[in-house]
Amino acid sequence: MYKAPVEEIAFTLSHVAGLGSALEEGRLGDLSGDLVDAILSEAGRFAGEEIAPLGESGDREGARLVDGAVITPQGWPALYKAWCEGGWNGLTGPQDFGGQALPHMLNVAALEMWNAASMAFALAPTLTMGAIEAVSKHGSDALKQTFLEKMVSGEWTGTMNLTEPHAGSDLGVLKSRAERMGDGTYRVFGQKIFITWGEHDAADNIIHLVLARLPDAPAGTRGISLFLVPKFLVNDDGSLGERNDVFCHSIEHKLGIHGSPTCTMIFGDGRFGAEKGALGYLVGEENKGLACMFTMMNNARLAVGIQGVAIAEAATQKAVAYAKERTQGKAPGWQGTGMSPIIEHPDIARTLLTMKALTQGSRAICYACAHAIDLSHASEGDEARHWAERAALLTPIAKSFSTDVGVDVASMGIQVHGGMGFIEETGAARYLRDARIAPIYEGTNGIQAIDLVTRKLPLSDGGAVRGFIGELKGVADKLGASNDAAFGTSATRLSAAIADLETATDWLLEALGAGRQAEALAGATPYQRLFGLTLTGTYLATGALAAAGDGDGEKRVALCRFAAENLLAETAALKDAVVGGAASLEAARAVLG
Amino acid sequence: MYKAPVEEIAFTLSHVAGLGSALEEGRLGDLSGDLVDAILSEAGRFAGEEIAPLGESGDREGARLVDGAVITPQGWPALYKAWCEGGWNGLTGPQDFGGQALPHMLNVAALEMWNAASMAFALAPTLTMGAIEAVSKHGSDALKQTFLEKMVSGEWTGTMNLTEPHAGSDLGVLKSRAERMGDGTYRVFGQKIFITWGEHDAADNIIHLVLARLPDAPAGTRGISLFLVPKFLVNDDGSLGERNDVFCHSIEHKLGIHGSPTCTMIFGDGRFGAEKGALGYLVGEENKGLACMFTMMNNARLAVGIQGVAIAEAATQKAVAYAKERTQGKAPGWQGTGMSPIIEHPDIARTLLTMKALTQGSRAICYACAHAIDLSHASEGDEARHWAERAALLTPIAKSFSTDVGVDVASMGIQVHGGMGFIEETGAARYLRDARIAPIYEGTNGIQAIDLVTRKLPLSDGGAVRGFIGELKGVADKLGASNDAAFGTSATRLSAAIADLETATDWLLEALGAGRQAEALAGATPYQRLFGLTLTGTYLATGALAAAGDGDGEKRVALCRFAAENLLAETAALKDAVVGGAASLEAARAVLG
Repeated sequence: MYKAPVEEIAFTLSHVAGLGSALEEGRLGDLSGDLVDAILSEAGRFAGEEIAPLGESGDREGARLVDGAVITPQGWPALYKAWCEGGWNGLTGPQDFGGQALPHMLNVAALEMWNAASMAFALAPTLTMGAIEAVSKHGSDALKQTFLEKMVSGEWTGTMNLTEPHAGSDLGVLKSRAERMGDGTYRVFGQKIFITWGEHDAADNIIHLVLARLPDAPAGTRGISLFLVPKFLVNDDGSLGERNDVFCHSIEHKLGIHGSPTCTMIFGDGRFGAEKGALGYLVGEENKGLACMFTMMNNARLAVGIQGVAIAEAATQKAVAYAKERTQGKAPGWQGTGMSPIIEHPDIARTLLTMKALTQGSRAICYACAHAIDLSHASEGDEARHWAERAALLTPIAKSFSTDVGVDVASMGIQVHGGMGFIEETGAARYLRDARIAPIYEGTNGIQAIDLVTRKLPLSDGGAVRGFIGELKGVADKLGASNDAAFGTSATRLSAAIADLETATDWLLEALGAGRQAEALAGATPYQRLFGLTLTGTYLATGALAAAGDGDGEKRVALCRFAAENLLAETAALKDAVVGGAASLEAARAVLG
Repeated sequence: MYKAPVEEIAFTLSHVAGLGSALEEGRLGDLSGDLVDAILSEAGRFAGEEIAPLGESGDREGARLVDGAVITPQGWPALYKAWCEGGWNGLTGPQDFGGQALPHMLNVAALEMWNAASMAFALAPTLTMGAIEAVSKHGSDALKQTFLEKMVSGEWTGTMNLTEPHAGSDLGVLKSRAERMGDGTYRVFGQKIFITWGEHDAADNIIHLVLARLPDAPAGTRGISLFLVPKFLVNDDGSLGERNDVFCHSIEHKLGIHGSPTCTMIFGDGRFGAEKGALGYLVGEENKGLACMFTMMNNARLAVGIQGVAIAEAATQKAVAYAKERTQGKAPGWQGTGMSPIIEHPDIARTLLTMKALTQGSRAICYACAHAIDLSHASEGDEARHWAERAALLTPIAKSFSTDVGVDVASMGIQVHGGMGFIEETGAARYLRDARIAPIYEGTNGIQAIDLVTRKLPLSDGGAVRGFIGELKGVADKLGASNDAAFGTSATRLSAAIADLETATDWLLEALGAGRQAEALAGATPYQRLFGLTLTGTYLATGALAAAGDGDGEKRVALCRFAAENLLAETAALKDAVVGGAASLEAARAVLG
């Protein structure tokens, strides 16, 4: 069973991702290290003791649609209530509406724990947090007054209604429509698919945020508006009123996250009365709906990235525990009686160390991204811009690298379990099933790569990425200057990886500058992984340098070295694919017929 | 729906894996190219038209245990009967018992098609073929007379009962026991787990091959005997007699291959009458059971390797079809109206080409392994030894590389489908679920790596692997000598990969020679992948060189170049992990606690 790695999380936040110095410098208000520790510990306890057991049973049971109502797994509504009562939903929520307005770093750390215990369960609040952000930033005062308090407390959950059957990555072609009613309200009509927690029995009301098109809207992405459509209308006194014209038509039969209902939602077919059309309220301005969505993309994408970290952590814990317990054969040098625990076999140890290194690396990337978001809010002017750009740059990497890590590490976890890994009751397979959605939703990892290369690299004319690479070099230099032989060739390896990243970056910026878009995009995915791996090496080194002398310092140095000497060599191949792969890719298109 | 790539299979058999020249040289009896083509075509038709539709429904339905009987999915017993009536079960079976004694290459090609259509279904005959081989090679004449004809026809299926809860990779510790009855027969007692098609309703009888220990057997692997235990005893006239004391206690709830019942089998608890103990017949000599099993390991492991190829092919077909049909966004340079088919996006094209290259590479490796097995049987003396060593060397690579490819390509296939990939009805997820077992069973890929490094590299004092690498260099030289600019830098890349393979091989042989077992084993898995990737590059080049001038020649050249310039660069990193990774791995063991 998952046990939250509270100390590791606290260490990464403080010593790798920047929380420690931000607290020292008083940049995060009156937040203290003690409070951080208390929050992390209690979140860890709740995740491991309360959520994890119901995560397993919830996966077996799944969500069910019965007569238009979605029934979540046994115990989940009560679990959700208890979780809300702990105040977890409002960790970063606005204080005016009952939130605690704590830094995103803390929420991301907490999200990691919720997701590791049950990704299917954690999806409900993840979506609500996105909706809160959209309403906080773009909603009218009236909307905020009516909806935010209950959303922040978690009494009402939120959803994001974007996708339609023909409009996934490309939202410009969506067809859902809205009509102005003349009184400032709208009626929304259409069908949305893949709506996470679109309908369920764990909260009193569900606040749908829906993208739709007004009759006179321009074509494409500039003609999309965002509407708030509650499941139940809200009376002036705050009590729940009549049922709105939106309902769940079906739920999907999915590879994983079985406890999370993935709904097809129908708006405006008149099912609940004479009046057709789901009553909706505009969020932001007409035709600016996509821009409203984009302002919360960083957080939402980061929240998916952390799912990858969470699954990787949980899968690693399970695999390490099994490998210590399961005995088979005799490892070289085994002195014990009988068979060795399989963890003694070098190949199993390699797998587990790879899992550890990737998990810690992706965690650090996600936390560093959250840190950049926090500092972009806590600073002004050029500094705010610097951190906003850093967050923008890190977001697609956090989302894609971490979710790929989630899938890969979950798959390695199955392998460590041998035949037992393929048996559902073992639980290792569930991690792969759950993890597999994360590289897809909230913008596929291919879309992230396009975003990284075409929108993020050009920030400040390449200055944002070049400045970041400069910082990475600083870490490699420190590593080189350390006289600890236990680092092995880490400094050389890390420097080589950073050089590969720089070469690939320069090549991409030049290609983009010269309008060679197709060539740049051909290398987008290898570039994204190259960036993630290099950051993994850098952040493991940062932690190892910070911990030198600590009790666990030696372990951090050893893991840093393992990653540098076993995983970072891949960067050369990735760089080659970026700078030299496009021509062969174009030439081979005929192969695909 | 899967369509067997009959032409591609025929091309790979003939021009890459060596069937063409073997036929020309008359080394395979009177087998003709026309007969090969006829067999492949009909197998392809049966797989695509008959098996594939029931493969999908069978996955949804799964196998069920009802009152001790296993009910396979609807239509499967009839499908199995029709498949047997086509003569497919006896393709390589002994002619004395109704088999066609055709080369293994053909059977492996056919197995690819059965598995691509339904891996769960194909497992039944795969296990039967293993049992036929064991009985043919090691059974007494009486056993052969009684059992082989019906097993070759497929009327009776076979199973392999090896694993016990505490004895998986390490069979030396198994506890099932057998007692001599004094009349030459034995009674078998014990529990076996993970028995594929251990009980089912598709055949009249099930012939279990069971590893067990005699009372006076030495400990460990030298005290294991192999027994044939039929579900129904067979009367002297060949009719079925009484029910033997073996039954299916439960079936597993698995991640994939849902149509294939994975059984826990109980031998000898007296359920079906007063007499306790499952009646069994010795196969081979007492205490030599493991050796009997090992003689069929090459074929069985190759049969699992081909499952990886099969899933990769099916997943690639599905992804390519979807990517041509699904439109989203506008790819750079897209001139059409509206959105582009997603195959136009460079990132999707990269994914699909990677899938193609890995599928074709792993196919060639498996076919080359089958070819080596065939020639080892068709020749004598040094030549037979040469081919037997080649088969021995290729087997762990064929098993591990291809099954890793199966998992990776299936996962990429899901990704290409976006959100639809996560929905079970799409079918892409099933490929990942099914593929995931193949790196585990029939010896985990970690065990394959140990086998490759510690048993196969030392063959002929390293001469077997060095000779093989010499042949690979010959292909790279031919590539270098070709003046076709369309190969890009393929020759340089391939030569570099082969040099990496050679460096790693030399290092491992030296480490083994010096008794540095742990160091060698630390690099076993990266070495295995290094070998597989290098072979992929070499075989794609072989095909491209052979096809030059053909209609499809240009495509083969382009795919060879794509693989060389995008996938082969990884070999340098893998070589580094082999020759330099062990120290860091040992140093990092403390990280695992």
